[in-house]
Amino acid sequence: MSTTKPLILIANDDSIYSKGICVLTEIMAEMGEVVVVAPDTVQSGMGHAITLGSPLRVTETQDFGPNIKSYKCSGTPADCVKFGKHYLLKGRKIDLVVSGINHGSNASIAVLYSGTMSAAIEAAMEGIPAIGFSLCDYAHDADFSHCHDFVIKIAQQVLIHGLPKGLTLNVNFPAKSAEIPKGIKVGKQANAVFRESFAERKDPYGQPYYWMDGELENYDLNNNTDLDALEENYVSIVPVKYDLTDYEELELMKKEWEL
Amino acid sequence: MSTTKPLILIANDDSIYSKGICVLTEIMAEMGEVVVVAPDTVQSGMGHAITLGSPLRVTETQDFGPNIKSYKCSGTPADCVKFGKHYLLKGRKIDLVVSGINHGSNASIAVLYSGTMSAAIEAAMEGIPAIGFSLCDYAHDADFSHCHDFVIKIAQQVLIHGLPKGLTLNVNFPAKSAEIPKGIKVGKQANAVFRESFAERKDPYGQPYYWMDGELENYDLNNNTDLDALEENYVSIVPVKYDLTDYEELELMKKEWEL
Repeated sequence: MSTTKPLILIANDDSIYSKGICVLTEIMAEMGEVVVVAPDTVQSGMGHAITLGSPLRVTETQDFGPNIKSYKCSGTPADCVKFGKHYLLKGRKIDLVVSGINHGSNASIAVLYSGTMSAAIEAAMEGIPAIGFSLCDYAHDADFSHCHDFVIKIAQQVLIHGLPKGLTLNVNFPAKSAEIPKGIKVGKQANAVFRESFAERKDPYGQPYYWMDGELENYDLNNNTDLDALEENYVSIVPVKYDLTDYEELELMKKEWEL
Repeated sequence: MSTTKPLILIANDDSIYSKGICVLTEIMAEMGEVVVVAPDTVQSGMGHAITLGSPLRVTETQDFGPNIKSYKCSGTPADCVKFGKHYLLKGRKIDLVVSGINHGSNASIAVLYSGTMSAAIEAAMEGIPAIGFSLCDYAHDADFSHCHDFVIKIAQQVLIHGLPKGLTLNVNFPAKSAEIPKGIKVGKQANAVFRESFAERKDPYGQPYYWMDGELENYDLNNNTDLDALEENYVSIVPVKYDLTDYEELELMKKEWEL
C-alpha cells in the first residue's frame, strides 16, 4: 500500500439510497479517498446490463456528507463503474472498486444475475482490483454490524496483494446472528439451480400476467462452496473471473467434433 | 439424435420483430419442433438481467406462421428462457435452446453484456444444451444468407454429441462478404477492453446528459481467439461456462492470503 490515500470507487445495485452502500462508504472512508457512483433506482437482478441507445443522467448528491463525492446515475451498476472511471475520475488511477454491500445473497449462481457483482466484474474488465460484498439478508434495514472488520481485512489484503488481471472477489456475509462469523473461507461457486415457478394472475381487464418466483436447489453439498461456508457461519470468498472460455472443452471439441 | 423430432426453444435479445430471429426460426424448423419466446422490445446489452419485483406479460403471436408456436414476452432474454422452460413447456424435455441470430458481434468480452448469450447461458444453467448465434453486422436488414449451413451443422453436432452440463456455445459469424466463410474455428474469448467515452450534451432546460460510446481494443492478437477467427473470415465458436470460479486463484489464495 502506498503512503498516499488509495482512491476507492464505490457502486452497488440497491441504489444510492440503500443502507448497504452507506455502511460500505463509511467503512471505506476509513481507508482512503472515496467516490460513490450508484444507481438512482433499484437495479437488483440487472446482471451485467449496460445502457445502449439512450443517454445517462448523472447528478452530484450530498448523501454522504461534505467530505465524500457522490453521484447518482440513471443507469445500471456496470454503467456506474464505466462512468466513474471514464468520466468522473478520468486520468486518475483507481486503486480499488467495491460494490455493495448488497441486501441479499450473491452466492452460487446468483453471481450471474447480480448487479452488485457485475459492477465489480466491470471494474476487473477495466483492470481495477474489485470486490463485491453481499449480506445474506434482504431486509432494507438489515444489520450489517458484523461485516465491518471483515470488509476492512479483505479490502486491505487486496490493496496489499493486488489482484491478478481479470479477477474479482465475490464476498458474501452470513446474516447477523447471535454468533459472530467463525472466519473467512475461500471456496468455489456452488453448483445450483433456481427452480422457477410462474404464478398466473388476471388484471382487472381479464388479461394474464405472471409472477416469477424461484427457489435455489444446491447440487453441490460439502464441496468447499460458498453456500457451504455461509451455512457454517463463515464469510465466503469466491475468486471470480470474466473469461468464460471453457479451456478443457475447447481442446476436446478441437479433437472430437466434425466441424 | 432420436427419431422423434427434437424440441427446440428459440430466444434472442433483438426482439421477436427482428430479422435475425426469423432467419433462425426458419432454419430450426427444418430440424425439429420449434417454440419461440422472445422479448417484445429490444433488449440489447441487457446481460443476464432478470425481472424481479414486477410481473411479466406474455402474449401468443402469429409471427412465424400457423405451424410454429410463438410468444412475445415483456421481460429480458433470460426471462424468456425461464418462462419457456418452466411455464409454456413445463413437463416436456427441451432438446436444444438457440438464441439469436444477433444483429452484431458477441465475440470477446461482448459475451458478458449480451442478452443473446445470456439466454443461451440461462438454458445451460437449466441443464439444456444451448447455442448463441451472432452475426458481426448490426444492420436491421443484415444479410444472414451465409449463416444457414453453419447453423445447421453446429446445431446438428450439438443434438448428436450433446453438451457437457454447464456448457454453452458462443457462435459468431463474420459479416457477409464476397468470400464465403472459410470454415469453423473453435477458440477462446479474446482478452479485450472497451475504451469508453462519454459525450456530454445539454437538454433544452440546460441539464446535462451523457452518451456512452466505446471502442473495443483487442489485447489478444494471434492467440486462437474468437476475434482472430472472425478477422480471418472463419465462423468462431467459443465454449462458454457459467462457473465463474477461478480455481487456480482459489488455491493460491488459500496458501498466500492472511484471512
